[in-house]
Amino acid sequence: MLKLHFAPNSRAQRSLWLLEELGLPYELNRMEFNPKDLKSDEHKARHPLGRIPVLDDGDVSIFESGAIAEYILERHKNGGLKPAVDDPLYPEYLQWFHYCEGMVMPPVNTIVVHTLLLPPERQDETVRGQAQRLLTRALAPVNEAMEGREYILGDFSAVDTMLGHAIYMSNRLGCVTDEMTNLKAYVSRLETRPAFQKAMSA
Amino acid sequence: MLKLHFAPNSRAQRSLWLLEELGLPYELNRMEFNPKDLKSDEHKARHPLGRIPVLDDGDVSIFESGAIAEYILERHKNGGLKPAVDDPLYPEYLQWFHYCEGMVMPPVNTIVVHTLLLPPERQDETVRGQAQRLLTRALAPVNEAMEGREYILGDFSAVDTMLGHAIYMSNRLGCVTDEMTNLKAYVSRLETRPAFQKAMSA
Repeated sequence: MLKLHFAPNSRAQRSLWLLEELGLPYELNRMEFNPKDLKSDEHKARHPLGRIPVLDDGDVSIFESGAIAEYILERHKNGGLKPAVDDPLYPEYLQWFHYCEGMVMPPVNTIVVHTLLLPPERQDETVRGQAQRLLTRALAPVNEAMEGREYILGDFSAVDTMLGHAIYMSNRLGCVTDEMTNLKAYVSRLETRPAFQKAMSA
Repeated sequence: MLKLHFAPNSRAQRSLWLLEELGLPYELNRMEFNPKDLKSDEHKARHPLGRIPVLDDGDVSIFESGAIAEYILERHKNGGLKPAVDDPLYPEYLQWFHYCEGMVMPPVNTIVVHTLLLPPERQDETVRGQAQRLLTRALAPVNEAMEGREYILGDFSAVDTMLGHAIYMSNRLGCVTDEMTNLKAYVSRLETRPAFQKAMSA
């Protein structure tokens, strides 16, 4: 049985969302997103820095949400929700999957730190402003690539649980502008999916 | 023929290093790491934000160094330098591959911005200090995982061109401490590899 170590409002939502989309059975270890749970000795034995998600699968224990997605797709669904290597969409799948952590999430993290996590007196408006501009720039190519598409590759795929989650987060942080009409419609579309709703409300 | 759009002192070194390790034929478009080259109309047609690396392969054009690595391994070497899905090392390969961009590179980027890229009056010592502490913490689990190993998975693999490059960068920025003896030895070992030397001096 797959066991997902989870906390709300985190990248662990991506993993839960994917498990739900695939209809895989799993057990959930739901923790709170605070040091008491995440920095406990018990959880630090799973992840040395006390981060989530972590996925257990028998003897295997693996962290990093991108790695967990690939692991699930390859070991448990044999490429479900992922284009085959010879599929014309395969390069684009890889590109956007990695664009998520490479380009979108670093400014998202900075904005979260300087709006929600740091106490007000340690929040830096200059740093936050730079991150907001960087994020807007990083989102623009995704908005453009989604012209005429319902999901990132056209049909729903695992890349939506990665980059789609990052765009949903960006929108909550107010960084998807009204001009990014494709991304606004995309977020609305994601919000109607039962698997997404389950992951976001867990 | 594969064509790599490249600039020195960037993530494009990862892609060049992998091509060299695999002995694949390629053409190199070497640009300078400055706006004149990277933000030119010509290059922005390849990458909307003017980033590198970009890989061309016939009709395919793909960016993000992690995506390029996976693309090359799957389309051109059928899993060379990458464990098979049923290999016991496969989960660890995925984990460290994604840990590179998720945990190590964000503070590396912040440090580079606040030591090398911004003019001195805009460099922020507080921001840099936070990033340095974050990076040291992110490197510790890698140092531990490498106990008794020559490369990240034991034998050399594509994950060394990703996370190994990030650790090499971290060391150049002074963030691999003397106590991280496994990482110090690892960097020295990487530096002896001809493919690494070619990528770093291109």
